[in-house]
Order: sequence, then structure tokens, then C-alpha cells
Amino acid sequence: MSSMRMSRLFARTLREDPSEAEAPSHRLLLRAAYIRQVMAGVYTMLPLGLRTMRRIERIVREEMDGSGAQEIRMPIILPAEPWKVTGRWQAYGETMFKLADRHGRELGLGPTHEEVVAPLVAGELPSYRDLPVNLYQIEWKYRDEYRPRFGLLRVREFLMKDAYSFDRDDDGLQASYDTMLQAYRRVFDRCGLTYVIVEADPGTIGGGVNHEFMAHADVGEDLYVACPNGDYLADLEAATLRPPEPADTTELQSLTEVSTPSAATIEAVSKLLGRPASHMLKCILFDVGGRAVAVLVPGDREVNETKLARRFFPVPVRRFEDADFASLGLVKGYVGPQGLPGDVTILADHSVRGAKDWVTGANKAEHHVTGANAGRDFRVDEYADLVQIRAGDPCPVCGQPLRIERSIVVGHVYQIGTTYSEPLKATFVDDDGTERPYVMGCYGLGITRTIAAAVEQNHDEHGIRWPKALAPFEVVVIVANRDDQQVTAEGERIYLELAGLGVDVLFDDRDESAGVKFADADLMGFPVQLVVGRRGVDAGTVDLKLRATGERSTAPIDRAAQAAADLLAGAP
Amino acid sequence: MSSMRMSRLFARTLREDPSEAEAPSHRLLLRAAYIRQVMAGVYTMLPLGLRTMRRIERIVREEMDGSGAQEIRMPIILPAEPWKVTGRWQAYGETMFKLADRHGRELGLGPTHEEVVAPLVAGELPSYRDLPVNLYQIEWKYRDEYRPRFGLLRVREFLMKDAYSFDRDDDGLQASYDTMLQAYRRVFDRCGLTYVIVEADPGTIGGGVNHEFMAHADVGEDLYVACPNGDYLADLEAATLRPPEPADTTELQSLTEVSTPSAATIEAVSKLLGRPASHMLKCILFDVGGRAVAVLVPGDREVNETKLARRFFPVPVRRFEDADFASLGLVKGYVGPQGLPGDVTILADHSVRGAKDWVTGANKAEHHVTGANAGRDFRVDEYADLVQIRAGDPCPVCGQPLRIERSIVVGHVYQIGTTYSEPLKATFVDDDGTERPYVMGCYGLGITRTIAAAVEQNHDEHGIRWPKALAPFEVVVIVANRDDQQVTAEGERIYLELAGLGVDVLFDDRDESAGVKFADADLMGFPVQLVVGRRGVDAGTVDLKLRATGERSTAPIDRAAQAAADLLAGAP
Repeated sequence: MSSMRMSRLFARTLREDPSEAEAPSHRLLLRAAYIRQVMAGVYTMLPLGLRTMRRIERIVREEMDGSGAQEIRMPIILPAEPWKVTGRWQAYGETMFKLADRHGRELGLGPTHEEVVAPLVAGELPSYRDLPVNLYQIEWKYRDEYRPRFGLLRVREFLMKDAYSFDRDDDGLQASYDTMLQAYRRVFDRCGLTYVIVEADPGTIGGGVNHEFMAHADVGEDLYVACPNGDYLADLEAATLRPPEPADTTELQSLTEVSTPSAATIEAVSKLLGRPASHMLKCILFDVGGRAVAVLVPGDREVNETKLARRFFPVPVRRFEDADFASLGLVKGYVGPQGLPGDVTILADHSVRGAKDWVTGANKAEHHVTGANAGRDFRVDEYADLVQIRAGDPCPVCGQPLRIERSIVVGHVYQIGTTYSEPLKATFVDDDGTERPYVMGCYGLGITRTIAAAVEQNHDEHGIRWPKALAPFEVVVIVANRDDQQVTAEGERIYLELAGLGVDVLFDDRDESAGVKFADADLMGFPVQLVVGRRGVDAGTVDLKLRATGERSTAPIDRAAQAAADLLAGAP
Repeated sequence: MSSMRMSRLFARTLREDPSEAEAPSHRLLLRAAYIRQVMAGVYTMLPLGLRTMRRIERIVREEMDGSGAQEIRMPIILPAEPWKVTGRWQAYGETMFKLADRHGRELGLGPTHEEVVAPLVAGELPSYRDLPVNLYQIEWKYRDEYRPRFGLLRVREFLMKDAYSFDRDDDGLQASYDTMLQAYRRVFDRCGLTYVIVEADPGTIGGGVNHEFMAHADVGEDLYVACPNGDYLADLEAATLRPPEPADTTELQSLTEVSTPSAATIEAVSKLLGRPASHMLKCILFDVGGRAVAVLVPGDREVNETKLARRFFPVPVRRFEDADFASLGLVKGYVGPQGLPGDVTILADHSVRGAKDWVTGANKAEHHVTGANAGRDFRVDEYADLVQIRAGDPCPVCGQPLRIERSIVVGHVYQIGTTYSEPLKATFVDDDGTERPYVMGCYGLGITRTIAAAVEQNHDEHGIRWPKALAPFEVVVIVANRDDQQVTAEGERIYLELAGLGVDVLFDDRDESAGVKFADADLMGFPVQLVVGRRGVDAGTVDLKLRATGERSTAPIDRAAQAAADLLAGAP
């Protein structure tokens, strides 16, 4: 890093909020001249943005190298073949950018690199003696998001650190994984982020144990569940509920058909019959690879389709369409579990055990039944965890009401085991002479996303408030009276002194009013502002401001540089 | 950079020469574990390769920043539209990787970034007061080479530093250009390359003055012409010849038709008539955007089709095919300039003026003519520079015989002027209130190519001999007797001492024989080797070797680290 004069800096701030920017980080990174959009979800990093990005990269490199990982660099354009072998060519579908070269060979742009790194390691490390190894890279990744938005938060081209550990067995993997978890903690602590580490949904990458590093942010689209007691934290899609006490089934109502004209929704039936939605039983039908599956949940709850998809992965799951209802002779809007054909699998959420005497569809147009009970009136093939969690649901550990929080996932670590090494035949020879697939971990850390998360957590109505570890410049020296030669000369002297002290300093020597300079300094978010003005020079002082707190102070002009450096040392 | 133990380094050397590797740098970078191929023309950089790459990047950054250029980072995936506006979407053709996103929008992978940077600057710097500015990035570039080869020399994904200067006028451009020329000299000097700076063919990028930085290399595919006097240097495609003295035309033979059965080639006619090829006149026909153009060159010379294409750019030029000959009623193999239809443009190379009484085609099957003379027997619409240069041709400055040298182009700087800013409407408001297009320069520097060029220039039969500025590690400490605890402990001590001195040191602590370690050290090419062995420990000495010269020395074991550091300080 180095110091610089703002009159030469390629950074023109915007006075107006860009209309397309919904998230604070998007708005501020555009206004403060950190990024510029080239097309939807694709950005140029301007000098300020690049400097912040490089700071994060450096922190990540130090922590990765310090953890024994080794940096390599894999290509962005990749042959399709290994992705077809693992099934991800299909699984990613349109999310992977695909192209053909001039000879017609199919290529993809790397969304992640398991398919490249596993064959690489297999070619180099043939023996268990060579293990463990952990390779990482910091490189641009590509995912064709359907709807990019929120600036650097949901993009199609993003900078990611991805690491891959290769171990002989599960114990080795656990050790490599723990080392990475610690390295990630240090990275995000150094970046000054507030975050939680939660168990996450393994998604389609496959594998088992995995954790997300979730940075708190009001605009975050990644939800997690937290118990106020602190004894439970989980990604919303992975969170489970404490199953309710089973309902007392000693006395049951009888099954009765009722006419419910034009009441095909829970809301309408609830209103018509004067019963709360929680007394209704939703019976939602899915096509699972050509087979019909009914999912039962209470009327006031939603099916968690992510959990359902994971349950049947890799078989595709989709909701019934009109034609599917027709082919089974079912009446959409009036389906109930009683009397469903025997080849329909019936799954019920655990919560269904907690009540009885359900109101549900009568499998007949404009009719429902009341007093439907599992076992007596309908079959349940299996109880499972299938509902979406809501705020207030009981903690699975202590039963306290759970909170739902918004966040940005900035890191994701996975124990993927042999999910990729097995199909790719990435094997080593173990001490007993047998070939075994490497036991892999993979570890992603979003660099560009961390920039956005840091801004989401550190801003006010005037602009960004960088933690000093991420600021593109640590101190800005502002000359308040540009046409005053003595003031300018003092500013210049202080600027050079600060640079001499090893501080990354920006010298605002522009031919602009003091007001514009103050506003830009606040907007761009440098941790310490030092202002040299006519009155200060006369009084022998400079003004200092700590951006994080807004705290102002003065310092003698002859030791201004040291005072700014001291203020910086105490800055967050 | 940092120090490291070789037992943990992800670098497995290859004992055998890879069969696919034709160039020394390709062979050595593979064998010494710097790179691995993922597919044709696409490589992974292993830890050693990445370290060397980062060293070059750092040199480039320092020199670019020191020249007042500012680093940004532009996307790799780019929208097609601006490339269509400048015509390069078509001009690059299959050389540009093209794809469509999920919404069907056309995208390309950036081969260079004029189409991105010009609109960016236009959005930020509206006034002449904002100029000049020079923006650069170091990023992967994409060109779908028809036949990738020679390892990092001709690839499809390569790391390039590309810079773009924006000036108000030609004088500004000249100043920016000169600054870049100087910066490039410093970069390549610091990289220890032997190179020349030559005037080059502007190619299809357009624009005028441009220079190539050509690093000498026997495998180089980029040829340049040099006068032994040192007064002329040029890219082969751009070089010109001193035109010959015009032939004395006071006495001319008469035009005579001769029968030349089955002699449709220069060689055959030459043999049949007993006349040297230089007495024949080749008449080569081209289709230039639908128009016929004949090019006349002596029989012993070839048409420089690059020069011809440049002359007519952007109109496409192609050689006549059979159907073209037929449509003009011409007999392929027997075409001569005399009697060509009036709508055929006839161009002759300057060398055609230097002789008379040509043998050429009679425009009749199996017949030629002798005694053909320009002006009397055929028309020449224009004399121009149209031949390929050969070794021994006269220098255009002094007439001395020229040499042709092989090289690798590692840098290319262009004065492109308004070639891109004009069609892209990238304009600024000048002091008279008028909108003018920026006057641009563009400056490319191949980082991965520089790695290969450095290896081409610095290797022997044992491996690479890095100049210290580019070496992944500066010193390797080799423990010759791994199972000897005292020797190992001494090695470890020296390793840590060297690291403490700020030297990038690799500690070869592997469980391998001394012979393997010596061979790997030579192969990988670290500038200084320090060997600790049993005999040395007994004698109180270590052995040192300077890889560049092979020079060996010893040093007292208690000041071994300092001795290695001193040797490094004097290494090339």
C-alpha cells in the first residue's frame, strides 16, 4: 500500500443516491467510488475498492499460510468432463456459465474448484505419506445468478478464497477442518466483522458437517435461527425444532364431511368453519422423480422445500402441477390424506403429532372433513422434520422461543469427505497397499462479499466507517483552504510526515471547498480525518476526527502527524 | 513471501521430460513443478510458479505505481455490445471466447479491455482538467488460440498487465507513452531479461506508433529484423527494405512467348528455362472485399500478407481460389501482369523496380513469356512495400545485410489515439467547450509470458537458473544426511537464521538422498544452494553453490547464513 494525492486519485464521488441501489453497501460503495457496474452482477473495482479488497486478501493469505495451507492458482476456464463425472455440470444447470471453444469443446467458468483440485492432487501425491495437504487460491468465481442484486452481495463474478484439504481419513479431515475453522475466525475477527458460526445445510455440494460464517446485516438474505440462551444456532434451512408432546388421542372426534363452497385455501376454510389455521392439516403433493409424495404440515406452517429436496437428493423434487392432480384423480385445493392411493408416500412433519381432530380436504370439490386423525383415518408413512421455522418456535435444546436473524454468509466450510474424490478416482495408496479416495474438506471465503458485509456493519447516514484493517487509506489529510499557500504547505508537510511514519495516507489537495472535502472524507470512510485550516494554522493546531465515533479533538500542528498516528492506533 | 520446508511443499518434480513439451521453458516448468496443464493452453500455477508470478507482479506494480498509473480491476466476463460498436466482436472472431448468459445475453471473456475502460473513464472524468489519467490492472486474459503450444508461451488463459492512458491531445499521449516505455524498460531490466524494443505492426488493434518488447529466445515465434550496425530494429512484419536502384532500362529484350509444359511453379519454370528464380515475376492474385488485386514480387520472394492486409484493413483480403481464377478467365499457375483486365489493381513491390526482362506467366495454359517489362508490357498501378524480409536483405538505413532474430514478445505498447474512444463516444469537454474523444494509449505486459521468457533465457541441461528477482526462493538449504540428527539440526539452525535475515529460503528437509536433493535444487533453479553434510559439520564448514555460474565455495558453518546471504547479494 502507499500514500497518494486525492487530486490524482481516480475516484469521483456521486452526490445522489443511485436509484438502483437497495442495500446500504451497494449505495455507499457506488457513491464513494469504490465500484462501478459493468453489467448486472458484474463490477469494476476502482482504486479505493481494489485497495480494500487487497487488504482483505492479505489478511486471508496470512491466516491461510499461517495455517499451513499453500497457495496455488487454478484456471477460470475449465473443461466440462470432470464436472459431468461428479454430476455438477447438470446440478449447477444454468447457474454455471457454459461455453464452447473454437473446436467445439465444452467449457465452464469455475464456480468452485473441487473438480480441478482433486485430479491435480491425485497426480502429485500418490501416497498416504504425502498427506495431509491443504491448497488454496484467491481467484474470481462465476455463477450466473438469476437475479443479481445488492451490489457486491449477490453478483455473477466474485472474488473468493477457496481451500481444499486432503486427508487420509476422517480424523485427519476433522483436524484439517478445525484448523480452518480457527483460521476463519481469525480472518473475520481481524476484518472487524460481527458474525456467528452456524451449522448449515449441505446443499447440493454434498457431504456432511458444514458451517457457515454469517455476518449480521439487516439486508442479509441468509437467515439463521438463534436461541436467546445461546445454546442453539443454525442456518434457517438446516434448523430443527423440538418435536411437540404427542396429542392426547384418548378421545377423538368422528370424521365428518362438511361443505366448503369456494374455500380452496386454508384462510377461506378457517374463516368459514371458524377454526384457527393451526387446526387445519395441509396436504401438499410433490412429484419426486415421477413418484407422488404427500407432505402433511399444520395449516399455519409452510413446508421447507429445501429440507425436502435434500431428503431425496439427487432425485429432483417439484410441486404438483394441474396435470399431476388430474392424473391421480385428485381435486386441487381439496386434497386430504385420507383415501389417498396406496402408491402415494405420506410424510408428516413432527408437529402433526402434536394435535388431533384435523380439518383437511375431503378429496372432493368444495368439501372438507373435520375430525381427521392419523392412524385411524389416514396413514403416515414417516414422521420427519419438514416445516419452515418461525420466530418464536421452541429451541430444540432448551425449548425457549427462537429468534430469526438476517445475515450475509461470508464463509462456508464443508467436510465433503469422498463425495468428489470417489467419482473422480482421486486416490492415494494407504499403508496397507490399498487405493483409497482422499477425504476432503473444502473451505470458501467471499472476499468481495466481505467488503460489502463490512460496509453493512460499518456505516451511518454520512457514509462508510471502515474498521482500520480494511480502510483503503488509514488517514485523510484535508486542506481546508486550498488557495492559502501556508495552509497547503502545512498540509503537505503533515502528509509526508504521516507517510514517513508508515501510515497509508490520502492527501486531499483538491481544488474543492472544505465542505465537499469533509463530506467526501465521511463518505469514503477513512478512520482518521486530519484537517489543516487557516484558523488552526494561526492557533498552531490541527483538527482531528475519529470517523468511527465522530469524536473530535485538536493537536499541536508541529506534532500533528504523530497525533493522527496515535489516534489511528486506538481506532477500531 | 515467506520461507518454507520442502517436505511440506506441494511440488513433485518429474524425472522424465514430458513428451508434449517442445520448448525448454515448457519442459522445465513442468518438470520442476511450477505449472500443470488442465487442458490445452490452460494451466494451474503450483506454489513455485505462483511465487515467481507474484514476484513479477510486484515489480510491475511498483513500476506502474511509480509512473503515476493507478490500479483498478475490470471484469473478465463482459457484455458484447461495446465490442460490436468498435468492430472487434467480429474482428476477433473465434479468437474471443463467447458465451450467453441464462437470459440469452451475449458475453465475451476479455482479451484486452479498451471497450471497458474507455466508457468507465468517460463516466468519471468529464473535463480536460481531469486529464491525464493512466489506469492499469493485472488480470487473466482470454484468447482462444487455434493451436496452443510451448507451455506458457502460447496459451488461452494468461496473466497480463494492461494499462490505458487518457490524454487531451497527441502531445499528452506522447508524454504518457514515453513514461510507459521507461516503466517497461525498468520492469524488464529488473526481471533480468535480455530484450530489444522494436517498432511493430499495429495489427488489427488499430492506431499508429507502437513498440514491442522482444525477449531473445531460440524458440520464440516472434521474429524481428536487426542491422548489425545497430541502426535498425523492427518487427519482421513491420520491417521495410531499402528499395533497390532502378534497373537500367535503356536496352530491353522483346516480349516472347515460350512453351512451358507442366511448369506451373517458379521452381519448374526456372529449371526448364535455366533462369534463376529472381528473374521470374510472381503475379499473385487476391480478393480484396470482392475486388481483384494482383501483387507482383520477384520469383525468389514471398508476399507479406500481413502488410497487404494492413494496407486494406478493415476490408478482408484473401488469396484467389479456383473459382476466382475461372471467373476472370485466368489460368492458375500461368498468370502474368501483361493483359490483365483493366479492373484488376496491380501492385508491385519496390524490388520489382530493381530488375527487368522478367519471365512471367503468359495467361495461357503451359506457356510463359520472357522479356516482360513494366510500363511497356504491363501496367503497375502502385509500387509499395509488399515482400517478406529475409536475412541478408539490405538495412533500410545503411544498406548492411540484416539479421533475423527470434524472440518472445513480452510487452507491447500502442498509441491508439481515438480509435476506440471515437466509436465508443468516450469524450471529455475541452477548454473551448467542445466534446472531444480521449486520446488513448494502451500498454500490455505479459506476466505469465515473462516467466517463460525468463526460463528460456536462464537454463542449462540441469534445469532453471533464475535471476534472483524472479526466483520463488532465493536460497535452498540442503541437508545431505537426513538421518544424521546433528547435520539436520545444523541445517535447521541455518534455515531459521537465513529466514531471520529476510531471505526467502527453502529448507530441503525431505527424506530423500543427497543426489535427489541436488538434482531438484538445480532443476528448480534457486540462485544459491547451501549444503550441510556430515563431513562439513566435522570440518566446521558448509558448501555453497551459485546456480547461475556453477561456482562452488565453502563457508564456516557458524556464519553459513550470512555467507549465503552475501553470495545472494552478488548473484545476478
